Amino acid sequence: MGRLVQKFGGATVADLSRIRKAAEIAVKQASEGHEVVAVVSAMGRSSDHLKSLANELTDQPNARELDMLLATGEQVSGALMSMAIQSLGWQARSFTGSQAGIVTEHRHGMAGIRDVHPEAIEACLARGEIAVVAGFQGITDNYEITTLGPGGSDTTAVALTAALAAERCDIYSDVRGVFTADPHIVSNARCLPALSYEEMLEITSSGTDLLSPSSLELALDTHIPIRVRASHRPEDLGTLITHKWVAPDYAICAVAVDRNHASLTLTTTTPGAQTLEGVSNLFTRLQELNISTDMMMLLAREDEPSQELALTVDRRAIARVKTIIESLSESLGQPKVTFDTTSARISVIGRHLTSRTDIVAGVFETLHAASIPVQLVATSDMRVTVLLPNHHAGEAVRLIHNRFKLADGTFAGL
Amino acid sequence: MGRLVQKFGGATVADLSRIRKAAEIAVKQASEGHEVVAVVSAMGRSSDHLKSLANELTDQPNARELDMLLATGEQVSGALMSMAIQSLGWQARSFTGSQAGIVTEHRHGMAGIRDVHPEAIEACLARGEIAVVAGFQGITDNYEITTLGPGGSDTTAVALTAALAAERCDIYSDVRGVFTADPHIVSNARCLPALSYEEMLEITSSGTDLLSPSSLELALDTHIPIRVRASHRPEDLGTLITHKWVAPDYAICAVAVDRNHASLTLTTTTPGAQTLEGVSNLFTRLQELNISTDMMMLLAREDEPSQELALTVDRRAIARVKTIIESLSESLGQPKVTFDTTSARISVIGRHLTSRTDIVAGVFETLHAASIPVQLVATSDMRVTVLLPNHHAGEAVRLIHNRFKLADGTFAGL
Repeated sequence: MGRLVQKFGGATVADLSRIRKAAEIAVKQASEGHEVVAVVSAMGRSSDHLKSLANELTDQPNARELDMLLATGEQVSGALMSMAIQSLGWQARSFTGSQAGIVTEHRHGMAGIRDVHPEAIEACLARGEIAVVAGFQGITDNYEITTLGPGGSDTTAVALTAALAAERCDIYSDVRGVFTADPHIVSNARCLPALSYEEMLEITSSGTDLLSPSSLELALDTHIPIRVRASHRPEDLGTLITHKWVAPDYAICAVAVDRNHASLTLTTTTPGAQTLEGVSNLFTRLQELNISTDMMMLLAREDEPSQELALTVDRRAIARVKTIIESLSESLGQPKVTFDTTSARISVIGRHLTSRTDIVAGVFETLHAASIPVQLVATSDMRVTVLLPNHHAGEAVRLIHNRFKLADGTFAGL
Repeated sequence: MGRLVQKFGGATVADLSRIRKAAEIAVKQASEGHEVVAVVSAMGRSSDHLKSLANELTDQPNARELDMLLATGEQVSGALMSMAIQSLGWQARSFTGSQAGIVTEHRHGMAGIRDVHPEAIEACLARGEIAVVAGFQGITDNYEITTLGPGGSDTTAVALTAALAAERCDIYSDVRGVFTADPHIVSNARCLPALSYEEMLEITSSGTDLLSPSSLELALDTHIPIRVRASHRPEDLGTLITHKWVAPDYAICAVAVDRNHASLTLTTTTPGAQTLEGVSNLFTRLQELNISTDMMMLLAREDEPSQELALTVDRRAIARVKTIIESLSESLGQPKVTFDTTSARISVIGRHLTSRTDIVAGVFETLHAASIPVQLVATSDMRVTVLLPNHHAGEAVRLIHNRFKLADGTFAGL
């Protein structure tokens, strides 16, 4: 029996009864002989509550103070989780990120983990206790409290798994695993027993927030096996994510839908006014502000006095993107700017898709047959993404899921 | 202009509008040229909420985990206070107890401050920022988070005042200062402009929880002037507490009422069975558990087969006191035990009262004339305390306040 790191997401510690359930899972593994480290998120929506307090006080809360504020959320659930474990008769001890030795860079709200000093956790495990660690947070060399950004508790869990040389990291949420499509949309969607890191990265970057991309990248780099599973069905094994590709010969493993992006179009009618330098500056600024873009398309028609730049951005970043575009307006040819928030990104995730034009063709054929318009397309070796009207999204996912026979698990592709 | 420490109690940071008000007070002092350290309590009843979560999980929450849980309360109000100050255009920085250098002994829930390392606060003040410190908490040499027990934020504030050699510690609450009696009971009660530490200690130990006794003792030892004042009336100077006695020749400064005590009577009819050793053991155990007692009375009648021990204890400790008595039952003569929670302690606070039997006589005379029964009496050089039925408490305070002319400020005594 080895070491296990378990991460309990916000939904699994949303109230005291769920914290008890999570505690039972930790104690069960410990009583079976494992050394257990439980990483906890803040309770349910408590972080949103704290954020709203800050936003009520000031439009732009100071990043350092916001970290001081938000870090309390995981400390609360950690202490309660520890008490719940103790009430089940097992020894436990909670740790702040600082006490757990999570050392980060000095970058509030989005700090990367620089180092883990797990000595206190090691000592706790050596005493036979369950170590409960507040996720999402760390401390700088100057004793400043930092937070790790969205999905930060996943990153804490994976980093601890690596630092403690634990055998696996179990990510508990209220979802049973990774499905071939959202079961709320596709009734016969299937839970995938296993996936490779690369496949999971594509799935998460396509709108499924089961696991933060940065934690997955860390797992990939450090060879940490991850199991995505549900705390209300602890007997289910969920989805195991490792280096191993599921089936070497399959084409498609899942269809994902993402409603968090907006499409943005910049149109200028002054020929040559939208300079490549302007476009380049735009992307540099987006990168600096950590605003991810996808589905970029640049149309420069030689025969018409019109240039068009289209891309998708996270909806929450729209205001910031507008500011950037205004500041670059001249070099972008003083464009007409339109944001469309009524679209959804549908992604088909698989392998070697660039060499499988039949898959791309199949996606188009399916959508065309159902008269669903496609606004933008982006393809890569692991993903075909189409942007289409949101009200068609559910139908599109169902049709594609069916077309590629994802429910029967043959990974046939066609 | 020197340094000031300001402590904002739970009621003064209970919601965002009050936090803004507190921030205005801090910024006003800073803009007048003071270096300002603001120590904050948890917001309103938020600590009670956290405690109730712990108690719902387990009957006896682990003391270490309870400290981990409760310490978040002051961290939250500190971060919000800091943001509120920043939104007023002043620089601010919040600190946990640990970051503020508050080093305590390793005693959860009731840790004493062992040392203060104020270097980070000094650096913050040197940069012209307002330092906001989470009260009530500290850290041990082993990086364990501790809390300081009831009134702990007062202690944090006074300890920082001493460590930073600040000129004064202002304690802000929703009360305008120390009154000759509770203004809710006595309409013409007067706010005392000044008091000595010793007088204030007697007043606080008589049921007025404006300031924690341990913080007052620390102020007395370190010669820290304290001003008790209201955050909603920042222009009022409140009550200044120093080494100086108010008026060398006065007899009485205030009447206090305390409804938090229960009277406890142990009666045994076996002569000689209630041994002094038993009584001594009882007090040793109470001391060990930090349960304070007052108004002790031991009646041993030679001519009757009955012994009676009467004392008052904090009502919240009744269950624990019962357990102690049961464990000592034999050496206490297997006594009949009665708790009375319908009494109030009325205390007359003054100076040299043991040499002023006329004061004691005046108290009895006043109560007797109004047919108010007295159940127990205790006197010391600074205090005459009577235990009487709670439903007479208001009347008793008004009559005594009137009898000694406390409203007209002559301190005449008689």
